[in-house]
Amino acid sequence: MKTITDIHGVYANGIAAGIKPGKKDLAYIYVPDAVGAAGVFTTNKFRAACVNYTQKMMKRHTVKAVIINSGNANAATGDLGVRNAKRTAQKAATLLKIPATEVVVASTGIIGVQLPIELVEAGLDQLLSTPATRDGAATASAIMTTDLVPKHAYAEAKIGKKIFQVAGIAKGSGMIAPNMATMLGFIVTNATIDSPVLAKWLKEAVDESFNRISVDGDTSTNDMVLAFATGEHSFSVTDPVSNTAFKALLVTVCQDLAKAIARDGEGATKLIEVVVENAANRADAEAIGRSVINSPLVKTALHGADPNWGRVVAAVGKTENVKMNPDKVSVWFGDHAVFKDGVPLTFDRDAVVRHLKESTVLIRISIGLGAGRSKSWGCDLTKGYIDINTEYS
Amino acid sequence: MKTITDIHGVYANGIAAGIKPGKKDLAYIYVPDAVGAAGVFTTNKFRAACVNYTQKMMKRHTVKAVIINSGNANAATGDLGVRNAKRTAQKAATLLKIPATEVVVASTGIIGVQLPIELVEAGLDQLLSTPATRDGAATASAIMTTDLVPKHAYAEAKIGKKIFQVAGIAKGSGMIAPNMATMLGFIVTNATIDSPVLAKWLKEAVDESFNRISVDGDTSTNDMVLAFATGEHSFSVTDPVSNTAFKALLVTVCQDLAKAIARDGEGATKLIEVVVENAANRADAEAIGRSVINSPLVKTALHGADPNWGRVVAAVGKTENVKMNPDKVSVWFGDHAVFKDGVPLTFDRDAVVRHLKESTVLIRISIGLGAGRSKSWGCDLTKGYIDINTEYS
Repeated sequence: MKTITDIHGVYANGIAAGIKPGKKDLAYIYVPDAVGAAGVFTTNKFRAACVNYTQKMMKRHTVKAVIINSGNANAATGDLGVRNAKRTAQKAATLLKIPATEVVVASTGIIGVQLPIELVEAGLDQLLSTPATRDGAATASAIMTTDLVPKHAYAEAKIGKKIFQVAGIAKGSGMIAPNMATMLGFIVTNATIDSPVLAKWLKEAVDESFNRISVDGDTSTNDMVLAFATGEHSFSVTDPVSNTAFKALLVTVCQDLAKAIARDGEGATKLIEVVVENAANRADAEAIGRSVINSPLVKTALHGADPNWGRVVAAVGKTENVKMNPDKVSVWFGDHAVFKDGVPLTFDRDAVVRHLKESTVLIRISIGLGAGRSKSWGCDLTKGYIDINTEYS
Repeated sequence: MKTITDIHGVYANGIAAGIKPGKKDLAYIYVPDAVGAAGVFTTNKFRAACVNYTQKMMKRHTVKAVIINSGNANAATGDLGVRNAKRTAQKAATLLKIPATEVVVASTGIIGVQLPIELVEAGLDQLLSTPATRDGAATASAIMTTDLVPKHAYAEAKIGKKIFQVAGIAKGSGMIAPNMATMLGFIVTNATIDSPVLAKWLKEAVDESFNRISVDGDTSTNDMVLAFATGEHSFSVTDPVSNTAFKALLVTVCQDLAKAIARDGEGATKLIEVVVENAANRADAEAIGRSVINSPLVKTALHGADPNWGRVVAAVGKTENVKMNPDKVSVWFGDHAVFKDGVPLTFDRDAVVRHLKESTVLIRISIGLGAGRSKSWGCDLTKGYIDINTEYS
């Protein structure tokens, strides 16, 4: 498995600093020669202190390092929270011997509890005593909250004569919804891309990946996806062939991480992929996909491998402000057509149940109106979700 | 307990017709002297055959009777479904000896399976052999699906010199969301109100009651609320004092039924009331209330009596397209302030947990901007919901 530290010039590590009992909870990613850095941030109006701080820094500076903690979101923590975010960045900058403006912070965990700043500072002393470590696995573990597995993605392709690489790590699990509920993602590439171009391309990739997943429809205070470019190799960012090839790498890595997050949703036992086709336009396709992937009735039916397409149809139909003619809508589970042009079909129930019992379930929906298309990902809703979320704090 | 058949001139009964094994599943409500009748219908684009039929009839005629079946939604059933809805109404009209245009139909249950029309017709023969029965309890039982308890509401008040009555029955349970997911409601009054005025007032009452509840954010194909006026007593519908008094009765009955539906949500153990105050306007207050009442993280936390106000704040903050300044937002659980002007408060955790363990939990949220206010109702999210919905069909 390849990850972020398989890209030359990317340093990263994670340790247990005591924020969470007995688990890794503090990490850094450091790209000393970064030529570009960019971020995409939560749309929740209660933004954690670290989100505001990081977004401000990235607007003005080419950021080289990020400090990430799990176990505490530093959200709804008032002025002290803001000071603690800044203090974390400044301490790390001192240890890395770089300007404080080149270090940002990301946090995930419980809301409304002050960051244990002494533990963070002591942890940074230990973590950054060896700043040239390349342990992507430890880093991905340290950013986890209720995630069951660390999440890595890697893709490479030859563009011109050079191999271009994109790699990423992410944490997700519950509270994931379109617009990036509690998830953190960190992407690195060996390409030479400046911050404004990287910001634009990252936003496009996030729209087609992290913004298309849902675990429970909730959107958190802390989400962010950051990207860093090491500048090892160059291609012409204005050449359509080259930049299409590169953007495809970026989308692949973001989608692989997004799917890994959905599959590892709290209590999830399977990944659900919803493809909406032939909607009036792309926005309609996305809205319909979101309605289906967020429907608790669809999610529980699929958990029970119940081919209850009526719930899919009901979720399609409840989507607000989209063009739809019920007599043109069709639905497939996997390859099996179950509903065609508004009419239920006779289908091989056993075969459909077998598909619904697989670890990845596909729901395809045709709206029958236009060329609008979207893919989204989610997971089933199980008792495990209830267990995890009933007693979290 | 008073119900619809406590109003003079309202006949109703329910029997087991064999649509569901061993349970009551077919009912009628008959108001032979109805002077007004009106309905509010689902916004789902996949509307059941009965919804289209009933809405069309009510637009053109003063309807006197409704036939209700549970166990089968007659939704996504194509042309045969439309014919079966019509056939049900016509059979009932023949038995009641009234024009077919004065009978409408309502169905609830599984989607995409044809109505067993022979069972319905044989059931109608039995049910309407005694059309002057007044068994509100049997009627409320026959319209239930996964409901655990039948739902009745009644209110009366003196307006001028006469006692005006409003009564209703409803079924709800899962798949209830703002805009009336799978719920049926039937309201009767002894007032003299014509269909256009009744339609307007019913819509206003539904907006403040059934459209303010959520069990799981889903919206069904079959929802409807119908109202009938017997015309026993008159008041001036244009006099503000009289009509305010009457509309209050209508809202009370609709809200009591709505709260009963939320409390009986699939797997629910408690009723959650969310009051949003001081939003920029009423629409903002409603949107914020809906975001909180629909949040699976809030619903699971309250199930565990966990005073995790951070999830409430996150749900407030994720509401799209509303005015908000995080530094002005405050949150209370019951009477206990836990978050004030954007800052967490120290609070008596044991006292808050005690409130959260009660059968009705209150979350009050002040946005601190204007005069916008809304109340909404929902329930906790439990393993019972998963059990019920994983193996429904």
